[in-house]
Amino acid sequence: MEQLFVIKIGGHVIDDPVTRAGFLDRFAKIKERKILVHGGGQVATRIGERMGITARYDNGRRITDEQTLDLVTMVYGGLVNKQIVAKLQSRGCNSIGLTGADARLIPALKRPVREIDYGFVGDVDPGSVDTATCRMLLEQALVPVFAPLTFEKNGQILNTNADTIASVLAIALGKFYKVRLVYCFEKNGVLENPDDEHSLIRQMDLKRFEELKASGVLTAGILPKLVNAFDAIRRGVNEVLIGHADQLAENITDRPRGTLIH
Amino acid sequence: MEQLFVIKIGGHVIDDPVTRAGFLDRFAKIKERKILVHGGGQVATRIGERMGITARYDNGRRITDEQTLDLVTMVYGGLVNKQIVAKLQSRGCNSIGLTGADARLIPALKRPVREIDYGFVGDVDPGSVDTATCRMLLEQALVPVFAPLTFEKNGQILNTNADTIASVLAIALGKFYKVRLVYCFEKNGVLENPDDEHSLIRQMDLKRFEELKASGVLTAGILPKLVNAFDAIRRGVNEVLIGHADQLAENITDRPRGTLIH
Repeated sequence: MEQLFVIKIGGHVIDDPVTRAGFLDRFAKIKERKILVHGGGQVATRIGERMGITARYDNGRRITDEQTLDLVTMVYGGLVNKQIVAKLQSRGCNSIGLTGADARLIPALKRPVREIDYGFVGDVDPGSVDTATCRMLLEQALVPVFAPLTFEKNGQILNTNADTIASVLAIALGKFYKVRLVYCFEKNGVLENPDDEHSLIRQMDLKRFEELKASGVLTAGILPKLVNAFDAIRRGVNEVLIGHADQLAENITDRPRGTLIH
Repeated sequence: MEQLFVIKIGGHVIDDPVTRAGFLDRFAKIKERKILVHGGGQVATRIGERMGITARYDNGRRITDEQTLDLVTMVYGGLVNKQIVAKLQSRGCNSIGLTGADARLIPALKRPVREIDYGFVGDVDPGSVDTATCRMLLEQALVPVFAPLTFEKNGQILNTNADTIASVLAIALGKFYKVRLVYCFEKNGVLENPDDEHSLIRQMDLKRFEELKASGVLTAGILPKLVNAFDAIRRGVNEVLIGHADQLAENITDRPRGTLIH
């Protein structure tokens, strides 16, 4: 099978222009098939504040009400997505900006209301991804750049976590490509001691993960990423790599500098 | 050659939810190959006001400064575009939302500063449109939905008039398809008397246009549309139709209810 990299960025990589430009340089140079999935960083919050939109929470969980949905549709689907696409074009990387609604690539279901009503949040099943159209775009040498938005078949746009979009795409395309899912963030990888970049865990399998979880060294920040990662592996993704955005060039090789999960 | 409709909407069709929904019903039902180009309506102005962005003018011409560019990138490329795409999906029309930067479909050049500095405005040459990728999308039965944004090869997003985007696409694709370019607006077509919907001009050729222009019956609102239309015809577009958004179903037939230009 051919290699495919599904690469996710968020947070600081999006917010800081210098970090973003450096990342896009490295991303553009990848010769293999590739997909970029981006979050929204702090831009949506900042623009929301200017518009007088206050973030709503229920039991500490952020709620996507109607005006927040419009905000993220504008900022993720418009501003951040199109800026990344235009900057990639200037680097010779022929990208195409997409949401899950475009070409009905990622249908979702609005999250059912249980203890919390999350609002316009979409849950996605990898089985519903339109892999034929994704593959058609990839085989045309286009580079999909996904904003973290999906849609329900009634025409409702929905907000979906960018980590989830990345893992769902990796799982769905794992049937057709040898996929490495790469989560880029601000640390070198999974650390035994979050304050010490030298305590990097180079490789992790399920057994090691269970041990680390039991010993309590995994922080709340990294735990959901790892649960997502092992779920992706279980469902056919070849490898997941968690690493620093600055080390992307190394992290797509056989000798990555981040944490390789297999 | 196969038929292709390039259909442009703006203003009230975008701003009014009921008019918009009715239009999308009619658009979704068109069986031939089709492309939708949308303007921004008043949404960008409203959101700009909420963000404290004041429209800047130079000699009565609106200027796209940096914050206005970000605003239109969000609103046109994100909010309006993705809402239209999601609504078309719910009508069984498999659309894909695009700007000129996506798949480098419509490269542009920043308008040179002469008497007025228009700011981040892009001028487009139909010869630079990537017709191969446009055709590939159309042949995959995808329906491109274009926001009025282009890009310069240095990675700069640019604002381009939606009427222009529509005519540039029609001209570029006129080599491969029998194209009817349809401008939808709030009147039945070109009127001899703008206050009388019954004074509709059913057909117009260049000779008739010159006569009407000389007689002074053409208003400032319709004149640029007609100049655009005749330019498109001269450059290989089969027909241009100017008509009411509510009459789209009739306006794509051989017996249109708007003004047919050929």
